[in-house]
Amino acid sequence: MEILDGKKAAAALSTDLKNEVDALVAKGERRPKLVAVLVGNNPASETYVRNKEKKCAELGFISEIRRFETSVTQEALLAEIDHINNDPEIDGVIVQLPLPKHIDEQRITHRISPKKDVDGFHPVSLGRMLLGLPCYLPATPYGIIKLLAYYKIPTRGKHVVVLGRSHIVGLPVANMLLQKGEPGDCTVTVAHSKTQDLPAVLRSADILIAAVGIADFVKADMVKPGAIVIDVGINRVETTKNEKGWELRGDVAFEEVAPKCSYITPVPGGVGPMTILSLMLNTLRARKGEIDG
Amino acid sequence: MEILDGKKAAAALSTDLKNEVDALVAKGERRPKLVAVLVGNNPASETYVRNKEKKCAELGFISEIRRFETSVTQEALLAEIDHINNDPEIDGVIVQLPLPKHIDEQRITHRISPKKDVDGFHPVSLGRMLLGLPCYLPATPYGIIKLLAYYKIPTRGKHVVVLGRSHIVGLPVANMLLQKGEPGDCTVTVAHSKTQDLPAVLRSADILIAAVGIADFVKADMVKPGAIVIDVGINRVETTKNEKGWELRGDVAFEEVAPKCSYITPVPGGVGPMTILSLMLNTLRARKGEIDG
Repeated sequence: MEILDGKKAAAALSTDLKNEVDALVAKGERRPKLVAVLVGNNPASETYVRNKEKKCAELGFISEIRRFETSVTQEALLAEIDHINNDPEIDGVIVQLPLPKHIDEQRITHRISPKKDVDGFHPVSLGRMLLGLPCYLPATPYGIIKLLAYYKIPTRGKHVVVLGRSHIVGLPVANMLLQKGEPGDCTVTVAHSKTQDLPAVLRSADILIAAVGIADFVKADMVKPGAIVIDVGINRVETTKNEKGWELRGDVAFEEVAPKCSYITPVPGGVGPMTILSLMLNTLRARKGEIDG
Repeated sequence: MEILDGKKAAAALSTDLKNEVDALVAKGERRPKLVAVLVGNNPASETYVRNKEKKCAELGFISEIRRFETSVTQEALLAEIDHINNDPEIDGVIVQLPLPKHIDEQRITHRISPKKDVDGFHPVSLGRMLLGLPCYLPATPYGIIKLLAYYKIPTRGKHVVVLGRSHIVGLPVANMLLQKGEPGDCTVTVAHSKTQDLPAVLRSADILIAAVGIADFVKADMVKPGAIVIDVGINRVETTKNEKGWELRGDVAFEEVAPKCSYITPVPGGVGPMTILSLMLNTLRARKGEIDG
C-alpha cells in the first residue's frame, strides 16, 4: 500500500507554477491576478480566502480581496462582478460562498465572465468540460486528476466508481475521467444515495473516489483488494483523542481500508492540498489566455 | 418482452404538443417558430431539414429554412446567427450539420444564443443540464427520457449502462439519468471502446442504452435476463433481403437479444421518432420562455 501524498504532489506543482510565473515576469509580463469577493465575516470563509491569498503570495500571483458588508445589495454585487469582468488586469475571480440569504448565489456566480471563471462552476465551464474543450476545471476534481497524474497511475480502461453526485465534485470528476486521453479513458460509474446494493457497486471499482460527505462511510468490505482509493471527504468528528475535542476524518474508514489498497489518499493531506493548487493553475491558465470562454 | 414503441409514444406526445400550441393560439398568442440554417445541398441534410419542417407544420409551429450556398463565408453565417438571435419572432434555431470544411462548426453553433439553442448542443445548455437547471436537452437523449417516461418505467436506483461516450448521446443521457427525480436517480455507468471486459459491464445493466454506432454490436450474451434495452443506433447495412440492397439495423442484435429483455426498442421505430419530437418540445419551451439562458 502506498500513500498518495497530496502535500508532496502540491509542493511539486507549486514549484512548477512559481517557475512559470517567474518566467513570465522575466519576460516583462504581468503577474497573474486573482480577486476574491467576500461578503460578511463567516469565519470559515475568512479562512478559505486567507489561505488562497497566502498561496497567491507564495507563487508570485497578485491577489486582492474585495469585501462587502452582509447588508450589500444584489445589484451592488452584480455591478462589482461586471466591473471585475471588464478589468483587463484581473485574470480570475472567485466569489466565496455562502452568500447572505437575500442574495441569489446563482445569479452572482453565473454573472462571472466564463473567461475569468477560475472556480469552474459556470455552466459554460462545465459544458465545455463535457464537450472536451479547453476549460477551467472545478478545483477539487481537477486536483484529483493532477494527483493521479503526479503518481503516474494508469487510468485507461480502468473502472472508476465515484460515490456522490454533487455538482462540485462527483459529476465533474466522473465526466473528466470519461474524456479521451489520460488521466481519463476510464469506464465510470456514479453511485449515490439511491444506488441499489451499494457495497457491491463500490467493490467493482479499480479506482474508488469517495465524495459523499459522511465520515468513515466506506468500510473495508466495500473495497476490492488492490483498489486505488481517493478520499474527498473532510468531515469534522468528535473525539476524545485530543484536547480540542474533534478531528478531521475522510469518507473512508482509513485504518481498515488502507491495508487492502494499492494506493490511498490520507485525510488531511490528500486531495485537500491539491484543491487550492488547482485554483492557482486555473488562474495561471487565465493569465495565459488559454481558455477562450 | 414488450416493445417500446417510439412511434406510438411520439404520436401521443405530438397530440399533447399540438394541443398546447392550439391553446396558445386560442389565447391570441404567437405560434412557436423554428428556423433551420442549411448550407449547401447535402441530400441527408435536406431530408433531415424537410422532416423537421413537416413536423412543424403538423404541430402548428412556424418553420423557416434559411439556405446558403456552399461558398458562404463564415462571417456571413455568423452575421445570420446574430440576426436570428436578435429576432423576437424566432424561438429556436438549428444549424444543420455538417457545414462545409472552410467553416468552423463550433464557432457557428456556439454563436447561437443559449436562449434559442433548441438542439441543446451549446456549452451553456450542457452545463445547465449537469447542474440540474432548466435547460434545452439534446434531442436524442431527451427522446430516450421521454420514452422511458411514456412507458412509466421506474428508474430510481436502477443500474443504467450507457455504451458510447459521444457528446450528443452517451454523455448527455448519462448525466440526465444521474439527476434527481424520475426518469433519473439511476446508478449510471458509461462504457466505451476502452472499457475492459465490456460484456461483463453490459451484463450488469438493468437498463442498457446502446449508442456505439456499430450494427448488431450488442449480442444476447451481453444482456442480463429481464433487462430494458434502448437501441440508439441507426446503421445502414447491406442486405439481400430486399431490392434496394440495404436495411437499417440498430446497435443491438435485435432477434437474439429481444427474447431476453423485459422491454426493447426496435430500429427503426424506437428512439428515432422521439428525437424529432424532442426538438419540437424544446422549441415550445423556448416559446414559453421556460429557459432563461
